[in-house]
Amino acid sequence: MIERLGAIRAKPGDLSPLRIDEVLVRKMLVAFLRDEAAKAGFRKAIVNVSGGIDSAAVAHLAAEAYGPENVTALLLPYRTSDPKALTDAREVVRGVGIGAEEHDLTPQIDAYFAAEGGVEKIDRVRAGNKMARERMSILYDRSQVLGAIPLGTSNKTELLLGYGTIFGDMASAINPVGDLYKTQLRELAGLLGVPASIRAKVPSADLWAGQTDESELGASYADLDIVLYHMVDRRVHPVELIEAGFDRRLIEMVRERVRRSQYKRVPPIVAKVSLRTVGHDFLYPRDWER
Amino acid sequence: MIERLGAIRAKPGDLSPLRIDEVLVRKMLVAFLRDEAAKAGFRKAIVNVSGGIDSAAVAHLAAEAYGPENVTALLLPYRTSDPKALTDAREVVRGVGIGAEEHDLTPQIDAYFAAEGGVEKIDRVRAGNKMARERMSILYDRSQVLGAIPLGTSNKTELLLGYGTIFGDMASAINPVGDLYKTQLRELAGLLGVPASIRAKVPSADLWAGQTDESELGASYADLDIVLYHMVDRRVHPVELIEAGFDRRLIEMVRERVRRSQYKRVPPIVAKVSLRTVGHDFLYPRDWER
Repeated sequence: MIERLGAIRAKPGDLSPLRIDEVLVRKMLVAFLRDEAAKAGFRKAIVNVSGGIDSAAVAHLAAEAYGPENVTALLLPYRTSDPKALTDAREVVRGVGIGAEEHDLTPQIDAYFAAEGGVEKIDRVRAGNKMARERMSILYDRSQVLGAIPLGTSNKTELLLGYGTIFGDMASAINPVGDLYKTQLRELAGLLGVPASIRAKVPSADLWAGQTDESELGASYADLDIVLYHMVDRRVHPVELIEAGFDRRLIEMVRERVRRSQYKRVPPIVAKVSLRTVGHDFLYPRDWER
Repeated sequence: MIERLGAIRAKPGDLSPLRIDEVLVRKMLVAFLRDEAAKAGFRKAIVNVSGGIDSAAVAHLAAEAYGPENVTALLLPYRTSDPKALTDAREVVRGVGIGAEEHDLTPQIDAYFAAEGGVEKIDRVRAGNKMARERMSILYDRSQVLGAIPLGTSNKTELLLGYGTIFGDMASAINPVGDLYKTQLRELAGLLGVPASIRAKVPSADLWAGQTDESELGASYADLDIVLYHMVDRRVHPVELIEAGFDRRLIEMVRERVRRSQYKRVPPIVAKVSLRTVGHDFLYPRDWER
């Protein structure tokens, strides 16, 4: 047991347990994108590009999987969005060589919140969720027009901590990066050719001025990812993590976030009253008896 | 085998295999609403009430589970919605004795489609999907403001045929009626006290004038439900159903709709590259280790 605990925290010189074989992972993700789109009858893809590293990585992977001419980026700013995010998103689009559409969210968002005196009067998390769901709605609308499969961009850290909007940025048909922690996705992004300026940015959902992921989450991605890895992937008990020297408050915060956000990772729960029920025992992969 | 096939189609005087014990089902659904909301920390609920039978039944069940004072109905018309639907929705609200909010979708929807010359120029399925997602977005926004759990209203026929908008009307936290076929839900609605005028209406998603579910689906709910029951609940092979005298085109249409819409019933597919992955093997009920 001592030995096992001893192995939880990396010693100086140890390789991180989060290291990935980027070359292999890249191949797996490109194959995933091709296979899953083909099963669903798509040869084109669409993705919301925010100017951040995650959606940039997805845009690169999609261009590799489908050819840049078959990928469309959606750039969906709101009037208070950081202008730098939009210029970064345009840089990603240019770098990958894909097509792009820009749609301003402002008219719809402002119309909805007008009855409450405007978005400035609204709780900023509420406003952020409304924007995230409008971006999903536009992603799916343009998907239908273009015949392109909507790609997800939520990473594993976000999915496990529930750091995203259900039926908003967490919604997609297929997500190539949802099993990579943020720090792993940063490694992969280098190999994919995501510009260094975008890889070096402080991560932010850009839902309000000055927002950063790490200040909102209360810990660095480096710490969050190593805790999530031990807790989720290796099934190490929180008590063991604390005994191994991890900060108790960090462990408890992560555990509680994962538990409380489980509803964001499952489909709507249907009351079971029959022999076979959607989400309970009527479950197939999407290529069921094709 | 002959005997088994012989039992597939009801003979005159046979009881329908779709019959339910409405009194028991009602108790199960009310308990489901209470239990699932409590697990998620809610004592209040919110539901989009359209004026149709399904959302009326959910409103009745919710009032029974949480008390009418703890249930809010959202009435979310668009300018081309049938005015009769809105007056029916108001009648449901009065009958159940719950609170209601009305929000007009028109400003947001028209703002979005303005760039394409207005909603009248848009494919009506596209416009309908945009409205369904805006209704979901408002349901979740008001849920956050009111601290009320968002209830789903999709029935089993709709869920299995994919007759609904993914991340729109198909999205909710918990759905009390998703395991009841439309014809079964009609039976339950009578017991619950849904007005006869609403139970007798021709079912319509009201996404454009004159739309009816059955003309769009190409078959009656009575026929669709019995075919789905044999195919899904009883796992009878399509060939056996055709041999038993069911219409071949109906069987093939139903089978194809169920297969093609499977993506609407599962969470986004994440590319698996690690030991434990959201949606693959990181799966818990929402009360995981509470």
